[in-house]
Amino acid sequence: MNFLERRIARDGRALDENILLVDSFLNHQVDMELMQQIGHAFAEHFGGCGIARVLTIESSGIAPAGMTALLLSVPLVVLKKRASRITDQSVYQTGVRSFTKNSHYELTVSKAFLPAGERMLFIDDFLAMGEAALGVHAIVKQAGSELAGIGIVIEKAFQPGRSRLDALGLDVLSLARIERMSTEGIWFKDAE
Amino acid sequence: MNFLERRIARDGRALDENILLVDSFLNHQVDMELMQQIGHAFAEHFGGCGIARVLTIESSGIAPAGMTALLLSVPLVVLKKRASRITDQSVYQTGVRSFTKNSHYELTVSKAFLPAGERMLFIDDFLAMGEAALGVHAIVKQAGSELAGIGIVIEKAFQPGRSRLDALGLDVLSLARIERMSTEGIWFKDAE
Repeated sequence: MNFLERRIARDGRALDENILLVDSFLNHQVDMELMQQIGHAFAEHFGGCGIARVLTIESSGIAPAGMTALLLSVPLVVLKKRASRITDQSVYQTGVRSFTKNSHYELTVSKAFLPAGERMLFIDDFLAMGEAALGVHAIVKQAGSELAGIGIVIEKAFQPGRSRLDALGLDVLSLARIERMSTEGIWFKDAE
Repeated sequence: MNFLERRIARDGRALDENILLVDSFLNHQVDMELMQQIGHAFAEHFGGCGIARVLTIESSGIAPAGMTALLLSVPLVVLKKRASRITDQSVYQTGVRSFTKNSHYELTVSKAFLPAGERMLFIDDFLAMGEAALGVHAIVKQAGSELAGIGIVIEKAFQPGRSRLDALGLDVLSLARIERMSTEGIWFKDAE
C-alpha cells in the first residue's frame, strides 16, 4: 500500500459498499502535509507534460489541487458550481450530474482563466461515475485547450468513471483505487 | 505597500465603492505562491499563540488557510455552508447572513473536528461586515474552545466588521486594509 492507501485504511470509514467517509483528513478536516504528499505525487507524474494550469472544482478539490499547482509553479483555477445557467458571454458552462448528491449543477469558469491552446491538468478528490471529469473535459475542449491529465485522489474503481475517461484516451492517475468496500473493510486495486 | 497590497493595486479591480474583483489571483484563479506568502505572514504572526487548528469557510478561504495550516503544522478544518439546519447532534451550527450575496446560510462543522479546550485560528479571504467571523467566534465558543486569532487576506476597512471584532477583544491581522476604493483606484489604510 502507498502512503494514501495506508491513511485511508487507517482513518477512512466505509459506511456501506458505496459511501466512504474521509472527512477526518481530506474533505472536512484536511491534513495539509498529506495534501503536500499528494501534490508531490501528481507533480512528479505530470511534471513533464507542459501543464500550464491546474483546474479543480470547488470545494474539496482545492487543497490537493492547490498543492499540485504550487509544486508545478502554475496557476490554480477553481471551477464553480452554479445552480443555473448564466446568460453571460464571459463564462464557459456545462451541465454536470452529481450521482453522489443526486443533484445537478452548471460547471462554470471565466473565459479569462481558461485560454485556448494550453495543456490543463484536472485534479479532484474523488472519481466515481466520472461526471465531473467529463464536464471539465467538455469545458476545456470548448475553450480550445487540451486536458493533458487527470489526477484523482481516491478512485472508486468499482464504478464506471475510470473506464469512461480511459475510453477518451485521457491520462488518468489515481493515487488510491478502491476495488470494493463494506463495513468489514476497504480493499485496494493494484496495491503494491 | 506590502506584497499583497502591491498585487491588489496591480491586478485587483474595483467595480464601484464596494465590490473588489480579485478573481485573477485569489478566488477564481488562485496564485498559490501568493497563498504561500500569505500563509507565511499569518504563521509568523500567530505562530507563538499555541494554535491547535486553522479554521476556514468553504470555498475561497481554503487556499490561504491551507497554506497557513501547513506552515503551522496543524490540521485545517473547513466549515461548511448549509442551506438549512441539520437535525443532527454530531454538528455545531450557527446562522450567518451574507450581505455581499444577500443570502443566509448555516455555518456547519462536525463536533469531531472542533473539540473543547483548544486555541483556534480563523482565516478568511475577506472581512467586511464581520458576519462570517462572528459566526465562527460563536461556534468556537459553543465548542468550548477559544478563537485565539483571526487572519484576513483583504479587509474592507470602511465597513464595520473590524471594529465589531476589535470590540470582542479578538486578535485580528489583516494583510491588506482597504480604506476606500472606486473605479478611479484603491487606497490602503496604514500602508507602509
